[in-house]
Amino acid sequence: MTSSIVEEIRLSQGPVDLASRETDAAPGFTGKKADGKAALAAMADELADLQERLWAERTAGSERRVLLVLQGMDTSGKGGTLRHTVGLVDPQGVRITSFKAPTEEELAHDFLWRVEKAVPSPGYIGVFDRSHYEDVLIAKVRNLADPAEIERRYAAINDFEERLVEGGTSVLKCMLHISVDEQKDRLQERLDNPEKHWKYNPGDLDERALWDDYRTAYEVALERTNTEAAPWYVVPADKKWFRNLAVGQLLLETLRGMDLRWPVAEFDVNAEKSRLAEEASLR
Amino acid sequence: MTSSIVEEIRLSQGPVDLASRETDAAPGFTGKKADGKAALAAMADELADLQERLWAERTAGSERRVLLVLQGMDTSGKGGTLRHTVGLVDPQGVRITSFKAPTEEELAHDFLWRVEKAVPSPGYIGVFDRSHYEDVLIAKVRNLADPAEIERRYAAINDFEERLVEGGTSVLKCMLHISVDEQKDRLQERLDNPEKHWKYNPGDLDERALWDDYRTAYEVALERTNTEAAPWYVVPADKKWFRNLAVGQLLLETLRGMDLRWPVAEFDVNAEKSRLAEEASLR
Repeated sequence: MTSSIVEEIRLSQGPVDLASRETDAAPGFTGKKADGKAALAAMADELADLQERLWAERTAGSERRVLLVLQGMDTSGKGGTLRHTVGLVDPQGVRITSFKAPTEEELAHDFLWRVEKAVPSPGYIGVFDRSHYEDVLIAKVRNLADPAEIERRYAAINDFEERLVEGGTSVLKCMLHISVDEQKDRLQERLDNPEKHWKYNPGDLDERALWDDYRTAYEVALERTNTEAAPWYVVPADKKWFRNLAVGQLLLETLRGMDLRWPVAEFDVNAEKSRLAEEASLR
Repeated sequence: MTSSIVEEIRLSQGPVDLASRETDAAPGFTGKKADGKAALAAMADELADLQERLWAERTAGSERRVLLVLQGMDTSGKGGTLRHTVGLVDPQGVRITSFKAPTEEELAHDFLWRVEKAVPSPGYIGVFDRSHYEDVLIAKVRNLADPAEIERRYAAINDFEERLVEGGTSVLKCMLHISVDEQKDRLQERLDNPEKHWKYNPGDLDERALWDDYRTAYEVALERTNTEAAPWYVVPADKKWFRNLAVGQLLLETLRGMDLRWPVAEFDVNAEKSRLAEEASLR
């Protein structure tokens, strides 16, 4: 029932028109909200098993790891995806990095400097909550770098990600795609509910006023960096349950595709069994 | 039903005799395994709510945070506690650090140097899987430092933790207490099940042979560092479900005791509502 979600959300090559892509759909899934939540819950055991195999593999020298990049406009649900989908797996094997506005020190380096330091180690599922893509999104919209530098970055990102993939990292890039109306509802909710005031920042409305510029910047970034090695997935994200399910399914299918095996013991199992049996009189 | 688990596991002042403390008990809890699992699951929502408040608070400048230290012999279930108890809360707000044998660079510094770098930032629940206590446990048993240096470390740890507490960190120190027989069963299981071979290391049996030395080292460390500011909890850990429940209950009561409030908006809520309403014609 859920097997084609990943095919549906995978971005095909060529120009990107976000306005033509539905934000409130559930492509590849025929169920309703309750079915979607059940489907996500149902994948928890297999996800946990596969993650443990990935984690185990590193002890035998495997270099494999996963990097999940989450991008999207304010309120698109990066935090919710972390809580509900990434939260399904063992936190020991997860490393989440939230990228904020770069510090002065970070600005004094190449834009990938701070990103490089956050790439996951073998065995981990690394998650970027925002990422190096901000350096071709807000940086472009807000003119934080000159056009030639922005232009240079698309190729630099592709080179960087290709290098990650060659080093054993599965790179999954998700753009959580919401409509301008859905964002309004979510901002309204943050204003209406005092328990959500902390999530609201007056600057959010300034960014929102640039919605069209951001959409254009996303379209360019998606097209320019939608590589074979590290393709983009555009996740319809107005329905929170579908967003969570789609990212979960992508993670699940990625791990399935890695053919993860339990490492074979590098010690003599029978000899160790004998040692353990013989010290039975330890106490 | 679970209200006194925390009182039961809290270590009282004075000499510590681990042999006299039960490892397979469920102090403060009258239910069975299924009840314990249900009780842990039942606290998930409140834990998540309280953690989000802690996370929210930091946006208003709060310095508060939590540090959960997990110590215990091999197989005592530090990893399982991370998966089942720490795994209940939003991974965004959790930072887990696993302390391995120190590197050459780390050894060239004071023993607290690497620990200092891992303390949680405001809003976070930090978890140490092993910790600075290894520097008075394995370091003592294996003579990795001379006796005067080991002796110095107890006070240094107390000073360090007191400073953390003064800076807004709630420090929770749990010793996961298993019996020597339970460890044998768990090592046997790792040898019998090929899917668990990766968790087994022949060195585990060498450490096991020093069980009594470790117990003594623990007793000294627990007694010397069981401060008012950062007390120890000795968690009977032969029953995995009780171990998970007890650590969860400790975390829950700690967060409850912090009286966590949603931050009050520092912006003009009505003015922002008007701004949002007025740009209704954005699209």
